[in-house]
Amino acid sequence: MNTLEGIFNPKSVAVIGASEIEGKVGQSVMKNLLNFKQHGGKVYPINKKYNEVYGIKCYGSVLDVPETPDLVIISIPAEYAVDAMEECGRKGVKAAIIITAGFAETNNHVLEDRLKAIIDQYGIRTIGPNCLGVINLHNHLNASFSKEFSNMGNIAFISQSGAIMTALLDIANYYNLGFSKIVSMGNKIDVQEYELLNYLENDPHTKVVALYIEGLKDEKFISAAKKISRKKPVIVLKSGKSEEGAKAASSHTGSLAGNNAVYDAAFKKSRVFNVESFEDLVNLLKIFSVQPPMKSKKLAVITNAGGFGVLAADSVEKCGLELADFSATTISELKKYLPDTSGISNPLDLIGDADVNRYKHAFELVENDPNVDGLLAILTPQGMTDALGVARELVKLKNYMICKKDKIPIVASFVGGTSVLEARSYLQEKGIPSFICPELAVHALACLYRQSHLMDKYDSPEYLNEIRSEIAEAKANNPEKIDELLANANESNSKEFLKLNGFAIPEKFVATTKEEAKEYAENLGKVVMKVVSADILHKSDAGCVIIDPSDASEAFETIMKNGEKYLFDRKIDGIIDGVLIEQFVTGKEIIIGAKRDPVFGPVVMTGLGGIFVEVLKDVSFGITPITKEYAGEILHSLKSYKILEGVRGENRSDIEFLKELIVRVGVLMETYDEISEIDINPAFIKEEGQGGFVGDALIITK
Amino acid sequence: MNTLEGIFNPKSVAVIGASEIEGKVGQSVMKNLLNFKQHGGKVYPINKKYNEVYGIKCYGSVLDVPETPDLVIISIPAEYAVDAMEECGRKGVKAAIIITAGFAETNNHVLEDRLKAIIDQYGIRTIGPNCLGVINLHNHLNASFSKEFSNMGNIAFISQSGAIMTALLDIANYYNLGFSKIVSMGNKIDVQEYELLNYLENDPHTKVVALYIEGLKDEKFISAAKKISRKKPVIVLKSGKSEEGAKAASSHTGSLAGNNAVYDAAFKKSRVFNVESFEDLVNLLKIFSVQPPMKSKKLAVITNAGGFGVLAADSVEKCGLELADFSATTISELKKYLPDTSGISNPLDLIGDADVNRYKHAFELVENDPNVDGLLAILTPQGMTDALGVARELVKLKNYMICKKDKIPIVASFVGGTSVLEARSYLQEKGIPSFICPELAVHALACLYRQSHLMDKYDSPEYLNEIRSEIAEAKANNPEKIDELLANANESNSKEFLKLNGFAIPEKFVATTKEEAKEYAENLGKVVMKVVSADILHKSDAGCVIIDPSDASEAFETIMKNGEKYLFDRKIDGIIDGVLIEQFVTGKEIIIGAKRDPVFGPVVMTGLGGIFVEVLKDVSFGITPITKEYAGEILHSLKSYKILEGVRGENRSDIEFLKELIVRVGVLMETYDEISEIDINPAFIKEEGQGGFVGDALIITK
Repeated sequence: MNTLEGIFNPKSVAVIGASEIEGKVGQSVMKNLLNFKQHGGKVYPINKKYNEVYGIKCYGSVLDVPETPDLVIISIPAEYAVDAMEECGRKGVKAAIIITAGFAETNNHVLEDRLKAIIDQYGIRTIGPNCLGVINLHNHLNASFSKEFSNMGNIAFISQSGAIMTALLDIANYYNLGFSKIVSMGNKIDVQEYELLNYLENDPHTKVVALYIEGLKDEKFISAAKKISRKKPVIVLKSGKSEEGAKAASSHTGSLAGNNAVYDAAFKKSRVFNVESFEDLVNLLKIFSVQPPMKSKKLAVITNAGGFGVLAADSVEKCGLELADFSATTISELKKYLPDTSGISNPLDLIGDADVNRYKHAFELVENDPNVDGLLAILTPQGMTDALGVARELVKLKNYMICKKDKIPIVASFVGGTSVLEARSYLQEKGIPSFICPELAVHALACLYRQSHLMDKYDSPEYLNEIRSEIAEAKANNPEKIDELLANANESNSKEFLKLNGFAIPEKFVATTKEEAKEYAENLGKVVMKVVSADILHKSDAGCVIIDPSDASEAFETIMKNGEKYLFDRKIDGIIDGVLIEQFVTGKEIIIGAKRDPVFGPVVMTGLGGIFVEVLKDVSFGITPITKEYAGEILHSLKSYKILEGVRGENRSDIEFLKELIVRVGVLMETYDEISEIDINPAFIKEEGQGGFVGDALIITK
Repeated sequence: MNTLEGIFNPKSVAVIGASEIEGKVGQSVMKNLLNFKQHGGKVYPINKKYNEVYGIKCYGSVLDVPETPDLVIISIPAEYAVDAMEECGRKGVKAAIIITAGFAETNNHVLEDRLKAIIDQYGIRTIGPNCLGVINLHNHLNASFSKEFSNMGNIAFISQSGAIMTALLDIANYYNLGFSKIVSMGNKIDVQEYELLNYLENDPHTKVVALYIEGLKDEKFISAAKKISRKKPVIVLKSGKSEEGAKAASSHTGSLAGNNAVYDAAFKKSRVFNVESFEDLVNLLKIFSVQPPMKSKKLAVITNAGGFGVLAADSVEKCGLELADFSATTISELKKYLPDTSGISNPLDLIGDADVNRYKHAFELVENDPNVDGLLAILTPQGMTDALGVARELVKLKNYMICKKDKIPIVASFVGGTSVLEARSYLQEKGIPSFICPELAVHALACLYRQSHLMDKYDSPEYLNEIRSEIAEAKANNPEKIDELLANANESNSKEFLKLNGFAIPEKFVATTKEEAKEYAENLGKVVMKVVSADILHKSDAGCVIIDPSDASEAFETIMKNGEKYLFDRKIDGIIDGVLIEQFVTGKEIIIGAKRDPVFGPVVMTGLGGIFVEVLKDVSFGITPITKEYAGEILHSLKSYKILEGVRGENRSDIEFLKELIVRVGVLMETYDEISEIDINPAFIKEEGQGGFVGDALIITK
């Protein structure tokens, strides 16, 4: 049995703090559970003060209950709640919902830690504390103190805020949206979102999952969300995206990697819908909960208002959908029913005086058109308009389709106020989402299309695993060398370390005399010379970098002299190890950085060198593990990606090689916990098929 | 009297096609006018068939009416309508509304042209044809066949679509929004939007103007909108933004200047709100119609749901507002009324169990805080929540403020369904806009703030006028020379023309012998040499451009030889005039282009050379006339603007000089109708204070 079964599908529930006194949480919970009891569930009120609650025998302690309850709900003050959990543990209880507040959210971390210790000791899967509770509509279980009992349906909602949960339930009732499971997460002391996603993935009652998230605890969300997303849409409303919010989350992955950018990358990788507003969340639930997949981008728009048709067409293009071309049959049939002034194009303008019959014929003909894979019906209240009549025809069309194999999504936008309210309610009631303007309807359809084609994205771990083996082997073969390099990770050692791990590094030697310098330079051809010293940080500024010197031995002396002057001027008692003489390589400059995000772990950042990263802030983030396909997506997100593809007569860069570099950096971060940052700046990428080199690199260890 | 007074404030109205037969447009119009008659207006039904309509004496022709009616409304079939307008002209009628359809919109351009000729001949200011009509609520005039008579209020709505107009009126009733004037534009045969804007600018009943636009006829919209925007917000919903729509508008200003980009530039210059959706339009009307200006960015957010507080804070940052810091007094006073668990910060979380009193105290204290210049009240339906009670307190606060000098805007977001509907309606009724989620509320407040600070944008014509005089003088002084240069506007002549008009052009000579070439090159220092021939288009490809030659006489021969080979290979019977020898100049490369937009006239485009324009499509458009300040704004819109300001150790470019170039290009386009395009690619801009040069330039004449 899945460990969360006790929370969602208990046979018996104990309520610690049960009461009949109005206004008490324990009373609301008990009342809410009476329905569960009526459907055969066992309910055990626990309260020392009473012999019975709502006619049910009441116990003084969970220890006194004749069986071990599958689930315990706790609604007594925080200090007592901890003791009660201890008793639950001893009783063998395996699932709990702690409604009680007064833990970490009020800075009472000591109490929360004590609670956590008990939960861990006894292995009690726990929701909360500081939450509204859990509702499983298909089990008639309202294990919460939420007064609202929602419609049964297929939406699972997981919320880190009780108030947003109640607001959504309220609005959902209004729109006739139904729920399967509702979880108020509270402080998330034990059960995390990813576990719920894993559970919901195979929940037959859940078709769509919505989450309100303020912050996640770790990266496990990503793989769980990615996995369930292949079967069911997951919609996330994340708050704290502003700087203030990011600060509050006290995360720090460097100046470019604001908390928000990393969350966005995580949600992108998860393939979830990262919505921008509460309205957006509601709109997507409206469409996903009732509509079938959208097979292609081909949408038909039917309207009695030309203007809204044009606005819909604008949105179709903006959202990446397409207007279907009607078949010749459809067009000739439509002509029979439409006035001459209608152009029979898509959007199909039925003209302002369209009656129910004209809509009905248009609906049927367009739905039957094999070129059409989605239908948007627009209506505005004009002289002759019978909004409810048209709504009825749309519902008939939908019901007729239920018997068909090739169902297409149908949505509506009846624009107006009082004149269309009844029709809108009717549509929502009958499972046709209605949006307050066509632009929102098209956006929702575009999301439906995207979800219907998520499976198309191929992502294979083979190459990633190859690199993992390769780097693991390198680690196994050179343990001492690696320790040594990482212990003093200056630029030279950093590059040596990368070389050991399969990165292409230009050939180089460290010269300690001008004679050596000359000899090395002669062997390497075009070279760049740089001082080797951990004490000289900004080598170029110090005059310690010379590119393509005409006389290597002279350049050696200049660099040494400038280095010594740098140290002397700054009164640094430093050491100069010599001068690095390195093959001079060119290519497209790329920056690849990696840091550790406190939530998501290793994050790899990339962008084109020069103004692109520094001025235009054109960077893209990926979260490990990074497959080759994912590396490709990370690169694709760059606005400057086109430059890699070759512009202005340039050839395409070796993008495959660049993907490999990104995968390799990700694996290094996975493999070496002691590395806190990797900064490759720049890597030089040559033309397609020619690979490239790591130019400069610096590894920062803990 | 303003020429549109006859349309909005007639004393007498004739209805051609008046009828009592249900379903006839002439009947709806007559019925709608009965209220106007009751308020003292004169109504003259015109219809050969009747002696009276609705008890009012009916005439066979407008010529029979005993006086000249101020306004005529026409609702008879198109062919008859034209004759009726002829009679109106003879009668001396000066204002007409033609409701009749069947003109240009059905491709009956001949009839529309005949109508236009009559309108122009008699100077009848005409709305329509093919429209719903005009409503002036403050004059009790419903000169339309719209069945809906809206609430009186301060919104003027101008719509190019009748259906969008009826939808807005319907939704406005629902939200208790009131109108001053409503105009259905139809085919816009005579009266244009800009004239209505000019009229509405001084209309005391209008506080905010909304427009639905499918296309404009000329650029006059811009100055009219810009002028009224300083007094009243103007909100524009433009359709046809997609490629399809742009194609339909059949405009062509080159590949980079899609119709949409030019419209966007026009609306930006106009300082209007260019909204993205119908929902956005409605939301802005909600706030602008009832709220006072927002003096600063400092917003206070009060909520009973922490989650929505964070979402609001995110939006505050995203929309460019700020969260106010509460004063010490406010904080200490708030502590008296709030539970200990509330952090007394902004957003102010009143906690889920907030009752009416807690909200009331918070409202009063926060509104009184001198640091607060706007208030957003968020509410979600929780256990103890009395939504209507809280709404009442918010309305009391607003009414109390009416007596105060320092009014601040107050908006609400009561999030939920049935539980908050009554409270929302109450708020709307009492003039507090309510938004379905906090994100939309903050966005609306940010627009209010923007409108309140439009006056801060300074835009002076002095410099523009200087350049205009200068270029007019150049034209007056060199008429023949200029004709000659424009008659054969090759690159050399184009640059010569620009030089005559005050552009900085590198010194140059045309050499016809290798000896001349050598001599000129010696005088100019570093040079670039190019073939002079109208027949060789791609000079570089032809091997006819040599930069910084070591031997100018040898370069001359190479260029001549390559040029001749180019002509020979292509079998072109062309002429080579010689070799241009020009000072070689460097600097930041900028592209400045100018074309003529069919709607808005001369459009100037600019962007940084190289990848910025070509790959990243980072260009910005301006519409003439272009002042220096406006040129600055055009540049500011570039994503790459930072590069001009100096990055990575570079100095700031001479942005002032670049602005001057843009102003000058705009004036050239204004001055020379025969120029269809100017293409400066590149101009070289040096460091601040050092000016720059036009590198290459080509002028295309008609």
